[in-house]
Amino acid sequence: MEQLFDQYLLESSRTSTGRTITEADIVLHAGQTGDFYPHHMDAEWCKTQEFGQRVAHGTLILSVSVGMLAGEINEAAFSYGYDRVRFIAPVFIGDTITSKATIVAKKDHAKKPDEYGIVDEQVTVTNQRGETVIAFVHVYMVRKK
Amino acid sequence: MEQLFDQYLLESSRTSTGRTITEADIVLHAGQTGDFYPHHMDAEWCKTQEFGQRVAHGTLILSVSVGMLAGEINEAAFSYGYDRVRFIAPVFIGDTITSKATIVAKKDHAKKPDEYGIVDEQVTVTNQRGETVIAFVHVYMVRKK
Amino acid sequence: MEQLFDQYLLESSRTSTGRTITEADIVLHAGQTGDFYPHHMDAEWCKTQEFGQRVAHGTLILSVSVGMLAGEINEAAFSYGYDRVRFIAPVFIGDTITSKATIVAKKDHAKKPDEYGIVDEQVTVTNQRGETVIAFVHVYMVRKK
Amino acid sequence: MEQLFDQYLLESSRTSTGRTITEADIVLHAGQTGDFYPHHMDAEWCKTQEFGQRVAHGTLILSVSVGMLAGEINEAAFSYGYDRVRFIAPVFIGDTITSKATIVAKKDHAKKPDEYGIVDEQVTVTNQRGETVIAFVHVYMVRKK
Amino acid sequence: MEQLFDQYLLESSRTSTGRTITEADIVLHAGQTGDFYPHHMDAEWCKTQEFGQRVAHGTLILSVSVGMLAGEINEAAFSYGYDRVRFIAPVFIGDTITSKATIVAKKDHAKKPDEYGIVDEQVTVTNQRGETVIAFVHVYMVRKK
Amino acid sequence: MEQLFDQYLLESSRTSTGRTITEADIVLHAGQTGDFYPHHMDAEWCKTQEFGQRVAHGTLILSVSVGMLAGEINEAAFSYGYDRVRFIAPVFIGDTITSKATIVAKKDHAKKPDEYGIVDEQVTVTNQRGETVIAFVHVYMVRKK
Repeated sequence: MEQLFDQYLLESSRTSTGRTITEADIVLHAGQTGDFYPHHMDAEWCKTQEFGQRVAHGTLILSVSVGMLAGEINEAAFSYGYDRVRFIAPVFIGDTITSKATIVAKKDHAKKPDEYGIVDEQVTVTNQRGETVIAFVHVYMVRKK
Repeated sequence: MEQLFDQYLLESSRTSTGRTITEADIVLHAGQTGDFYPHHMDAEWCKTQEFGQRVAHGTLILSVSVGMLAGEINEAAFSYGYDRVRFIAPVFIGDTITSKATIVAKKDHAKKPDEYGIVDEQVTVTNQRGETVIAFVHVYMVRKK
Repeated sequence: MEQLFDQYLLESSRTSTGRTITEADIVLHAGQTGDFYPHHMDAEWCKTQEFGQRVAHGTLILSVSVGMLAGEINEAAFSYGYDRVRFIAPVFIGDTITSKATIVAKKDHAKKPDEYGIVDEQVTVTNQRGETVIAFVHVYMVRKK
Repeated sequence: MEQLFDQYLLESSRTSTGRTITEADIVLHAGQTGDFYPHHMDAEWCKTQEFGQRVAHGTLILSVSVGMLAGEINEAAFSYGYDRVRFIAPVFIGDTITSKATIVAKKDHAKKPDEYGIVDEQVTVTNQRGETVIAFVHVYMVRKK
Repeated sequence: MEQLFDQYLLESSRTSTGRTITEADIVLHAGQTGDFYPHHMDAEWCKTQEFGQRVAHGTLILSVSVGMLAGEINEAAFSYGYDRVRFIAPVFIGDTITSKATIVAKKDHAKKPDEYGIVDEQVTVTNQRGETVIAFVHVYMVRKK
Repeated sequence: MEQLFDQYLLESSRTSTGRTITEADIVLHAGQTGDFYPHHMDAEWCKTQEFGQRVAHGTLILSVSVGMLAGEINEAAFSYGYDRVRFIAPVFIGDTITSKATIVAKKDHAKKPDEYGIVDEQVTVTNQRGETVIAFVHVYMVRKK
């Protein structure tokens, strides 16, 4: 598939399928990143803390959110980065998250305005209770032709 | 450990140990996120592309960078989010990355200035050739007392 | 070990040890195969469906069944394929499955009848309630001498 | 998405993206299934055998092939089983496989002909040299309305 | 960091953070080691046994205990081995373990007494009820200068 | 299977199949244990060290050795612990290890001599060059009747 800069429509949006975040996901993410903080790994200590239970790593939720939205490949787009990633509410074991992405801004690429545009996609991830758990802007560089 | 807002020193920095990004890391990250794009998973297709080989997921490098810097726990600090995450150069299988984090800004928390401050830590991740591969600001909310 | 074609006895059977299918198995299998369908990964959506809960991937149950029966190596036998693989009942998280394999047919290899025979092993996998969850024929090519 | 029985067209086909089978995939599949046969796990012993190197598990290739074709969900279809799964050529570490699926047969469901049809999808998996490594028929039960 | 033999103080001790042993850990350890004994993998069979539930592999608890104590690297020390590893009580899914290590003996290296010393660190691992589950001596060879 | 104390024969031995230790095994073991020391994870740093390359974790080799010898279950025996675990030579990525276990001692259980005996099994693990990489005594408690 090839979707050029002009074909991105402001306010158009897409939604991922749901994904239940499991204890196994947290164990695997600790293993991949080396972050074994007790907030994620020590159920007993967590009982004494504000949330009362283990919390998923922020990078796990960010990574899964991005992955869940990786649908058909657009050969004209490149992932440029993320802006304003904010951890808004904790994700617990057994929570089910869904990602919604909306095109919120388009502009020319600063140095190569004839060739590329920049597309900002606002991603909002909610849990099964409708609470937003993480929000961020996924920035793409997209070919114009 | 408890490091309060006042104890964060501007321009102080810390550096992680190195970590070689392996084919296994990419396979596991695809499995965790569901992103099986050929850029990461199809060595044959990659031969026909600009980089000539498989490239690590951006979220893998971001997650590992954050995890590699997760040293002693500061009970007074909370991960608030990331700003200006930028994928600057690709990370290939066998590349070894190192993360350096520097305190670049401190300010009061907008709504609770007596209780909390915001600390910006600039993270720069380099490969074994000294090239920057990813850069981002890790934003912490830190108790003042 | 070397068990030749003549040494396979019709109606002889063997049984595996039991294996509890865990949430971690499903998460790992999704990660290995790339199949993140909500039937396996979204506990909330599953509550609205016929079975009311997440279901293991068919290929997970098939793979584990074959693996559980991989006992001592027979150097005279080669796995040729599977016939009539049928998913009969769902396997849920926490179900414990056991595989029973019975030799149900033997015949000469069509092209090399002096060298090889074909052995059909009927595999039936049951859960802890005695219900059959999957059934298939494992077809082996076995040396005659 | 809902694709009813009538909407499946004989001889229509779809093709997956490529997937390089890695040493990590084999290690993970051994770990998931419990099949640690030296054919998959012992590089030294494999040097003395016909293929000269480690070979992927048949169930790994079958599972990945099925997963790679798991595109958009058809809520009207159910995976019924597989027929005539045949391991035709070995898959080695570093081989890249691609799956092609073609509708080859349609018929009424024997017991519920008004409600369901059976669709046979022939799946052929090839490596980067164009050799077929595995072939099988994926059988679906599809609602008629 | 470099901590020489003389800097190890008898009776000094250190304690790890806690770690909840999960079902996922057991599944992954079975997969890494190939030990799929029903004591670890078959919840139904375990119900009929003394402990009534699945038990973590001894090597899992030993490995995690050693890993949890791997803090800052001492470039003057080498892991020499373990003495008197004893499995004292079972670890169940959901138990949280903590490791305490105490220097209990120091002596010269038998063959190179001017260059190296041997340090014995007694490791005791307890669960959330304060019961010791495993104990062992971690033996280090440490440079004298 | 039930093998009582009297049925263990001094000097009887058994040998495992071979197992190639892969980069994926090391990545997974770091992830399971939290030991991300550069000796195992940083190929660049290792180039500057004595061995010139990454080395497998000692607990990985110990765990795999024990797992590779976990054959048929003896319902009369319990794993009691390990004695004199010694890391003799490094295991590198791609090395293939084989375990040999020999009964070297039998004695009565100190407190319950009528019911149990203690069996010492010397395990020696060698690589593909015939070098011993790890050695230890696996201690079993075995019922007498």
